Amino acid sequence: MPFEYLPLPGTPVEELDTPALVIDMAVAEANIARLQKWANGHSMSVRPHAKTHKTPMFAHKQLAAGAIGICCAKVGEAEVMVAGGVKEILIANQVVGSAKIARLMALAGEANITVAVDDAGNVRELSQAASVAGKEIGVIVEVDTGMHRCGVEGGAPTRKLAKLIQASPGLRFDGVMGYEGHVVARRDLEERKTEATAAAQRLVNAAEDLRKAGLPVKMVSAGGTGTYNITGSIKGITDLQCGSYIFMDGDYLEVFEDFAPALSVLATVISRPAKGRAVTDTGIKAISVDRGLPKVISVEGAKVAALSEEHGRLEVTGEAEKLKVGDKIRLLPMHGDTTINLYSHYACVRDGRLEAMVEIAGRGRSR
Amino acid sequence: MPFEYLPLPGTPVEELDTPALVIDMAVAEANIARLQKWANGHSMSVRPHAKTHKTPMFAHKQLAAGAIGICCAKVGEAEVMVAGGVKEILIANQVVGSAKIARLMALAGEANITVAVDDAGNVRELSQAASVAGKEIGVIVEVDTGMHRCGVEGGAPTRKLAKLIQASPGLRFDGVMGYEGHVVARRDLEERKTEATAAAQRLVNAAEDLRKAGLPVKMVSAGGTGTYNITGSIKGITDLQCGSYIFMDGDYLEVFEDFAPALSVLATVISRPAKGRAVTDTGIKAISVDRGLPKVISVEGAKVAALSEEHGRLEVTGEAEKLKVGDKIRLLPMHGDTTINLYSHYACVRDGRLEAMVEIAGRGRSR
Repeated sequence: MPFEYLPLPGTPVEELDTPALVIDMAVAEANIARLQKWANGHSMSVRPHAKTHKTPMFAHKQLAAGAIGICCAKVGEAEVMVAGGVKEILIANQVVGSAKIARLMALAGEANITVAVDDAGNVRELSQAASVAGKEIGVIVEVDTGMHRCGVEGGAPTRKLAKLIQASPGLRFDGVMGYEGHVVARRDLEERKTEATAAAQRLVNAAEDLRKAGLPVKMVSAGGTGTYNITGSIKGITDLQCGSYIFMDGDYLEVFEDFAPALSVLATVISRPAKGRAVTDTGIKAISVDRGLPKVISVEGAKVAALSEEHGRLEVTGEAEKLKVGDKIRLLPMHGDTTINLYSHYACVRDGRLEAMVEIAGRGRSR
Repeated sequence: MPFEYLPLPGTPVEELDTPALVIDMAVAEANIARLQKWANGHSMSVRPHAKTHKTPMFAHKQLAAGAIGICCAKVGEAEVMVAGGVKEILIANQVVGSAKIARLMALAGEANITVAVDDAGNVRELSQAASVAGKEIGVIVEVDTGMHRCGVEGGAPTRKLAKLIQASPGLRFDGVMGYEGHVVARRDLEERKTEATAAAQRLVNAAEDLRKAGLPVKMVSAGGTGTYNITGSIKGITDLQCGSYIFMDGDYLEVFEDFAPALSVLATVISRPAKGRAVTDTGIKAISVDRGLPKVISVEGAKVAALSEEHGRLEVTGEAEKLKVGDKIRLLPMHGDTTINLYSHYACVRDGRLEAMVEIAGRGRSR
């Protein structure tokens, strides 16, 4: 692959070439500090989900602030984090199949690795690989707390799986997790409170049930950005898996403004073909649309009307009618995680100038 | 970035680790041959759009079949293609700003580069950079043939811009282009015919108008996969910019089956938490949803109900109820171009076995 041109540190943000994935570092750092401070005040631990930033540098900022470890969604992400020096990783997903499990065992020598399971066959597959490799990994049971995606029910099904883990060579039973993904972006606070509390309570009950059965439960892990202060207030939950809070995005900002937007995409106007219409160089290959069209945040009167692959069509009125070819605008993506996954580098900015172009080493690591 | 584990050539497709972006090479090659054969029979040239595959290997297959050059959407894609030995490139978009134009001039020494414009200021910016660099690039006027994205109207506005190009040092006026993007995916053939014909005729008229004004018009470039045989039948059009035809996707297969699906995503069932529900490891970070949810094509009775970032939730009935953890399924993405952009490599398969893992060198090159 040919050289990728990267701007030098110190470059003013408005001179960055586009599309650029811009992080306001002071805002991201304040978000990290804010969640940690809240957690410290509530005797809660933070285990941030690295699927959002996919980058060791940000994981280290979270750990330095006090996080007890990080979450990953895939083995490929965990490889990037381990290579970057992270030593405590929960893969909060099922890891299935011999290829991935072999890679998991390679990591287990370099970091403390825990994975989630919801299937007995998968437990046996993990145990066999760990035994052969002479490694130990932590395993937790994923409990379905109401999202109805992965996970087993609390009570007997969780107990059965936990006992199997405990009896399996090479596996260390660490506890349970549940993700209330059906609730985290609920706009109404009262609804969010009621449902997230119910979900967290199901998980805490499942943990209590295991303890009664004589199983040691260290980890009762749950929570997302939108439920940090609800799930995080439930006695018995041990740590929060929030991810998006570090940068926020348009979708979460419609839930609350407890954290501030640190992420934006800088775009250039490349065409001004008609009154009322401007076209940018930023389409769906540079900003995700799975939670809706991005918002223009740098100028009044501009609205994203449609995105094609490499074009953004804006409707412009008032102040925005003055936009001309070459002008730059800032866009707020509705979904940070999937937008970040489109880029090779962050443009990390402080006080309006580029601090560093930071490689998104976990980009595209879905295996 | 740590080592990325890649499977060896000869691996059976069903043993590939997932999510995997699988190309059936025989089907892709037949699609390339089929478009070229149609074009040869209609005295039409093919200038395939490389934004779909983003990979020199596929560009070379298209050129070897008879294509006269390729299209790119961005300078970053063109850099990849030039590094891969492609010598004839049309950047079918506006290239705006000094950073990108400097890179364009660096390429101009190694390949014949032509760009589209729709703005006088952009023409002056290109001319100044070419003069300073001592390079010559080709420039064409983008005409708005009805899509109302970029482009100027035919007639006087096109004439004015063409004359400016012709008078500008370092620029070679090459002709016009128009993209009937508002029509290419129209399901109804008669509507597609009527509107694509009207669009192509607007472009041909703009070219004729330029010739009457004494301007030489070599290139009258247009067309997409869905309009190849409509736009390609209009006298005066010189070449077709089809991209998606090489692999097809779920969306284009609802338009026609003139080309066959070569692209699929292989996924693994990672959870079988309840009757009627299976969950895969393939979410929106591994398959795009901007044109809708993918379809399960390997087993009857399975339907994608929802995708989250790294999970696919399937509703399973009948035959698909037998799916178990570890089983693999094939998904047809609704949009190939944006799905491909999520991967670092193609798994190129022939006769059911891996031929090669081919790097998608243009992945994410939106600058």
